[in-house]
Formats: sequence, structure tokens, C-alpha cells
Amino acid sequence: MKYDNLTLLTDFYALTMMQGYLETNKQNEIVVFDVFYRINPQNGGYAIVAGLEQIIDYIKNINFSEDDILYLRSLNKFNEKFLSYLKDFKFTGDIYAIPEGTVVFPKEPLLTIKAPIIEAQLLEACLLNILNHQSLIATKASRIVLSAGGDNVLEFGLRRAQGPDAGIYGARAAIIAGCSSTSNVLCGKMFNIPISGTNAHSWVMSFSDEITAFREYAKLYPNSCILLVDTYDTLNSGVPNAIKVFKELKDSGHDLKFYGVRLDSGDLVSISKKVRKQLDDAGFKDAVISASNELDENSIYDLKLKGAEITVWGVGTNLITSKDWSSFGGVYKLSAIYDNNGNSIPKIKVSNSTEKRTNPGEKKIYRIYNKDTKKIETDLLCLSDELITNNNDLIIFNSEDNNITINLKKDTFILKDLLVPIFKNGNCVYNSPNILDIQQHCKEELESLSYDNKKIKNPDIITIYLSSKLNNLKKDMLKRVIDKN
Amino acid sequence: MKYDNLTLLTDFYALTMMQGYLETNKQNEIVVFDVFYRINPQNGGYAIVAGLEQIIDYIKNINFSEDDILYLRSLNKFNEKFLSYLKDFKFTGDIYAIPEGTVVFPKEPLLTIKAPIIEAQLLEACLLNILNHQSLIATKASRIVLSAGGDNVLEFGLRRAQGPDAGIYGARAAIIAGCSSTSNVLCGKMFNIPISGTNAHSWVMSFSDEITAFREYAKLYPNSCILLVDTYDTLNSGVPNAIKVFKELKDSGHDLKFYGVRLDSGDLVSISKKVRKQLDDAGFKDAVISASNELDENSIYDLKLKGAEITVWGVGTNLITSKDWSSFGGVYKLSAIYDNNGNSIPKIKVSNSTEKRTNPGEKKIYRIYNKDTKKIETDLLCLSDELITNNNDLIIFNSEDNNITINLKKDTFILKDLLVPIFKNGNCVYNSPNILDIQQHCKEELESLSYDNKKIKNPDIITIYLSSKLNNLKKDMLKRVIDKN
Repeated sequence: MKYDNLTLLTDFYALTMMQGYLETNKQNEIVVFDVFYRINPQNGGYAIVAGLEQIIDYIKNINFSEDDILYLRSLNKFNEKFLSYLKDFKFTGDIYAIPEGTVVFPKEPLLTIKAPIIEAQLLEACLLNILNHQSLIATKASRIVLSAGGDNVLEFGLRRAQGPDAGIYGARAAIIAGCSSTSNVLCGKMFNIPISGTNAHSWVMSFSDEITAFREYAKLYPNSCILLVDTYDTLNSGVPNAIKVFKELKDSGHDLKFYGVRLDSGDLVSISKKVRKQLDDAGFKDAVISASNELDENSIYDLKLKGAEITVWGVGTNLITSKDWSSFGGVYKLSAIYDNNGNSIPKIKVSNSTEKRTNPGEKKIYRIYNKDTKKIETDLLCLSDELITNNNDLIIFNSEDNNITINLKKDTFILKDLLVPIFKNGNCVYNSPNILDIQQHCKEELESLSYDNKKIKNPDIITIYLSSKLNNLKKDMLKRVIDKN
Repeated sequence: MKYDNLTLLTDFYALTMMQGYLETNKQNEIVVFDVFYRINPQNGGYAIVAGLEQIIDYIKNINFSEDDILYLRSLNKFNEKFLSYLKDFKFTGDIYAIPEGTVVFPKEPLLTIKAPIIEAQLLEACLLNILNHQSLIATKASRIVLSAGGDNVLEFGLRRAQGPDAGIYGARAAIIAGCSSTSNVLCGKMFNIPISGTNAHSWVMSFSDEITAFREYAKLYPNSCILLVDTYDTLNSGVPNAIKVFKELKDSGHDLKFYGVRLDSGDLVSISKKVRKQLDDAGFKDAVISASNELDENSIYDLKLKGAEITVWGVGTNLITSKDWSSFGGVYKLSAIYDNNGNSIPKIKVSNSTEKRTNPGEKKIYRIYNKDTKKIETDLLCLSDELITNNNDLIIFNSEDNNITINLKKDTFILKDLLVPIFKNGNCVYNSPNILDIQQHCKEELESLSYDNKKIKNPDIITIYLSSKLNNLKKDMLKRVIDKN
């Protein structure tokens, strides 16, 4: 709200380390960082990556203003050499990323950053913030859209989102993942996204009675007349009044196209069935019943299972905050450092917690599809200088337990390189697609995933695999690092 | 990021309703909305309200730009009369609010908005968004600070926050609630808040070995030398190397003041005890042990109970997202409409769900303190034209069950009016205190709350009470509305 760009949106330790790199004359060492996450959000079988467009904007606009420098000087932690360096700061490195809307799996690099260490360090917190937020919400929204099985899902969580950006970019992520519209007008304007909405309890309450409120609304918006029927008593007042108004509309010659009622409280199964009957009995078989009220993928799944007569789902809090899983948990880990001779030296984080161990070296990712079914088999991590083809048989190693291998027979699989270039030498070389194209890409991505991997409850989890070369490197490094320290 | 102000940060239905009010010639009807929440976040005994400063900024800066109008026109939903009205839109109403950092309870108005209905309707979503977010995080942070029992709690969740604003304003809320610093540099600059941070695994990994990384860091920052010791092996490598460096610092004449180690993985109880012993045995009894790694109020409580030797707590994801409770759930409900004669007509929402019923009429809140203990007894909701004093005995009615009453004997209690004026006739009449003054206010507020109400687990819940007059009004209205519709 009160800032022009996100340059200072970084952790203080990034700046103390950056000054440290400058003072130890390491600032130009080229390093590689991988961005990855460790566990699928919401106990799902996959994630949807999102946020790249805003990451690109952030990096393009990095600029320490005079005012920023004055502030940093006032902290008495930074010397003039460093502050002067910041004045001309510009990202000069390379970034590869998996495009937005793609299905992704734990521990594979969603982005790789190759840059002088002093530059790469600055980006960490803001880049993760954006990626973590939008990927979390895109993944949550895709689960909700899947559970609605083709019904429209409307995003309207703005008021419950964790701040303005969470409302705006959360809605963006929801659209990527297949929501058909958002209630958020600013998001609609910024990204040219369909927006929707009807009326609130306050509209109904502001009139002398419910029927007048409905009548006035119908007069104004006869072509999208969804009436909120639970202000007083859904079955005895709301729906009968709505039916009266639909009849009046029809009698006055209106061609009723998109019209119906919205339920926002009570037991949605029994109420929606009764409402359906009331509407059908009155001859309004094509009136839509939409519902809201603390919906998520589980409640929609259960409601449909129990035969709720609802075909439009308005989802708020649970989607826009990913209520059951509050963070995507993406991390930014060093995977290689170039030496003075230009050789890329792999790095690994060992840690006391084995689940925090990293995959070393500069890497790329091949997605492996079954040639017949066109479904995803797994993703293969290999070193960036490896060339993998389907012309030969291939043995690959489970990244969590390298005693487990898969033998892929030649010509039975298809490979796709997942990481695409985003920045080269600091210049952006990527055009973000428009949001509805990303939505379409995401839809196709989900179609390439087997049913068992995208079940809402107890899905099969895809574990990524390592090439033989990467697997050996990791084994050797783990041994060496533990021996050394 | 890509917007100048938050004017369009509203739900689409606000705009369709606003056009409806204009078309039905109701636009100047004065209404009163209450903002309140229904359940304490995180199953706690209270909440901390926050976000008022940003709400004020938002309202002051509302302005539909040419560009906004063009966008709205392109939607083919709005007529020129309405678009022309928006060009000159300005908030002209009155707002009262409970100041930031105050302890609050369910179902009492945290803000009241009295304004022409067409203006009041616009504010709903953005105002709630800001209030919901910051109050949620302030409440979560206050629980974590309480559980740390006087130890410093450092906020460093930026990378896991739900978007840039969630990082910035979440950190602001955390400071209000008693965190001693944030890692977020931009937040530090915007609000003049203490920032802190040391170094990351990438710093350690970027050097040829751990001891060199520590040595270089200590040389640069001898006065705040907190070393991250878990990159390779905390007990066998990290701490021994840190001790070597502390000795070198001391031997070279540095007066060690604030120094120590940070743990970021493993079993923090057993590791911290062993680390304490290693440091003590080496003569570094005043070395600080700080810890991070998925901490929250429950884990800190348990760690302290089990004797973990940690005195500085770095808290990330669980605080900045309020992991266990994703939304404050504040709502914006109509409570009164003025008629043509200037009389305030109370309104009530009945709903099929009794917990969604509202308290009607224009109201104010008295906080009732016990005169001896100075602790909060309850909050009393009454109509705004009532004058309540402690000169007489007082009977008040439990807002959830009006068969439960409290008889307060005169002079045994103290009353405090909670709502203060923020806007009068559209002009802001309130100066937001600086952030550290709000932090101090919050600290005093928590001291006025009994221990049983602020326990982390199974706290006593304070239910608000109604004055006799308000209680009777509510009873009558419930009966009348249900009879009528």
C-alpha cells in the first residue's frame, strides 16, 4: 500500500550477508539456488505452481532508492562501500522456472537462480513469499474445482484473505486453478478476469421487506438475478418470495436466462433439496441454486455425495487462506558454487533432520509420461549437462530411497523438459501468458495426472527420481560432508 | 504491487448494490454497520484488534480514477448515472472504533460505520480484509509472546506469509502484540520497527568450511554474533566451531555482549541442553541460544516445560499465517437505518443459523473492570443513547443466554467507553499512535485480563453482556421479524 516496489521486502539477514560477501570479496562468486517445496499442500498428490509473473515484476523493478539507502544507513550496520554498491544494484543472473499452472511434485526445483551470490541472496525472501502464496492457493483452488466436478466455482474470499495482496493474488491463483470468476473487482481489473457477485444480506435488510428487496433487485438485474434467500427464513419466506419475483419477471416478458437463489446458511443438503422442489413445483426447473458458507473440497465432495441440489459454489475463507494448510513451505537452497576456473561445484545441505537434505548440483527436470496413456509417470531430476532420451532403456533412482529403482524400456515413455528460461544475464526473456491461457494450461496439466494422484482423499503420491549420475553424486557428497565436519 | 490505492478492492456485489441504492433513490439513507467477530481465534480467551491505521489510510484515499471508471463501464453492468456518481465518491460518514492493540471479545462492535448506505456498502470487503488479517496475526502473536514468558520473540515469517502485504502488515501486527523485532526490512522502514537477523545456511555453505564462515561473520559483526550451527552437525561441528570463534573474538580483545548460537533443526529440548553445557563448559555462560523451526505457542510452551535452554525464539510460518486458525472471521452487519424523520430504526439479521444472529441498533460498549483487582469482568453492550454509571446497582444480561444475568453492586466496578471517534462527517479525527506506543498499550491491555482468560490451553471465555434496554429490544425484534416473514 505505501511502497513503490518490493526491493526492501527482504529479510534483514540477506543484507548483512550481502555486506559480508562484499567484505570477503566473494560478491562475484556465481552460485546456483534451487527453489523447491517438501510436502504437497493439503495432503494432496500434487501442487500447482503459480506466481511467476509477479516474481518477474519484482526482479525487474528492484531498485534501492535514495530513501531506502538513507534508511539502511540509519541502522548503523552497513558501511558506505556496501550502501554505494546497493545504489547500482541490478539482477544480472539467469533464472529458469516451471511455467505457472503446471502440476509439480515435492523436492524438484520450481525455479533455479544462477547469479553472483550477493544478488541471489537478496531475492530469497520476496521470491519465496510470492511463489509460496500463489502456489498454495492455486493448489487449494484446484482441489476445490476438482471436487465440484465441472460445476462453476466462484472465488469470493477477499474479506477473509490475509491482507489486500492475499485477496488480489490469491484470486489470481484461484482463477489459474480453474475457478470461473472472482468477486474481487481490483483483481478483475488488473488481470482481466471474469468477476461476479449479486447481493448481500444488507441489501435485503435495507428494504422494508424481503419481497420489495427482491423485486427491486430483479428490476435492475433481470439477466443475472440470483436472490439471497436466507436473511429471514429460507423455506418459508426467502424462496416463496423469490418465486413470486421470478413469476413477475416472466409475466412482464423477461426471458429468464441466468437466475436463481443463493443459500448461505443451514444444512445445505436438506435445504437445497427442498428449495429445488419448491422451484421445480413452481415451474422454474432451470433456476440455479448456488451455495456458500464455509465450503471447501471436502464439504463440496460430501454435499455432492449426499445429493445436494447445488450447481454453483461460492467459496471464501477456506480457499483464499488454504485453511487446512497455511503455507506452501517453499525453500531456497544453495546447490552449486562456481570456482575460479568456471567449474560448477555441487553443494549439499546435510542437516540433523534428514528430510531437510538437499539434492546437490545444477539440475534440470524431465517429466516422464507413459507413451500409451499420456499420463505422468514421475519427474526425473538429473544434472544440467546430462542428455536423457527415450532411445535407450533408462534406470532411475527414487529420490527418497535409492534402493528403489524404475527400469524404463526405450520407446515406452515420453520426456518433457520442465524448466524454461526466464532471465538470461539479467534480462527477462519470457512473456507471461495471459491468465486464461494459464488456466487452460493448468486444466491440461491436471488431465495429464492420473486419477489416483488427484483424489481429494488419500491420493497416491508421486516421488521424483534421480538419474544415475545425480544419485551417485548425492551419495558421495553426503558421505564426504559428514566425514569432513 | 500494481495499484495506487485500494478503491476497487471491493466485492463486485458492493457495486451492483450501490447502483441499486442509487436507482431506488435510497443512496442517502443513513445506515449503521457493526464490524464484529464471532469466535476467538486459535481457541483462545480473547483477541487483539489491529489494522485501524491501514483502514484509515484506505478510506482517506478512496478515489475512483478515470481508469477505474473506464474499466467499470467496460463490464456493461453500470449506467452513466452511477459511473458519474462514482467519479466524485467520497466517504462522508462517521466511524467509531476500538483502538489497535486492545483486548476484545466476540460479538462486540470493533468498528461502527454510520454513513449513507451507498458509501457504507463500498467499504465492507476492504475494511474487513485489513481488520481480519491484522487482528488474526496480532492475536496469534500475543499468544506466542505470552507462552515465551518474557523471552524475546522475533518475527521472521516473510517468506511464508500469504503475499507481500501479509508479510508487511503481519509483521506490524506481530510487533503490536509484543514481538521484539521482525526480519522484514520494508516493514522496519515503513513503521520504524526494530529489525533483526543474522545469517543463513547459504552463508555457511558458501565458504570452504564452517569455521571460516563463522570467523568471517564474527569479524564483520562482532557485536551481534549469532552463529547458525546446524548446517552440518550441531553438536560435533557447529557448536565446537562457534566456541572456537567466540574464543578468538575474546582473545582479540572484543567485549562479547550479544553473541551465541541459533538452532534450526532437531529435537530442541535435548540439543539445547547439550549446547548449553558445551557453551558453559567453554566459559560462555552468557552466550544466547536462540531457536527457530516451526515454533508456535504450543511448542514453545512445551519446550519451556521440558527445560529447553532457549531464551530467544524465532517464529516464522505458524505466526505469520496463524497456521491453526486461518481467518479472524470479522463480519460487517447492518444494525440500524435512519428513517426520513431522522429516527434510528434498529435492524436485526435472524438467519437459520442462530449463531449468525446479530445485536440490533446503534450501540456502544462499556468495559467493566473489577474495582479491586482492576481486571476485566466483561464488556457491556448498550444502546448508544444509554448512559450507564457505577453510581447504581446494575443488572446485565448474557448475550448468548439472557436467562443468565449479573448483578453488579454500585461502586464495585469501573466502566470504560471502548469506542472512540475516528471519522466525523468524513473527516478523520484520529491520529494513529506510533507502533511502539500501540505495543505498550497492548501490553497493558493483556495485564488487565485475568490469567484464566489468557491461558494458551482451555482458557475461560468472556461472554459479553447486554443492557436491559438492548436485551429487551433484541427479544422483541427477534419475535417480530420471525412473525412477519
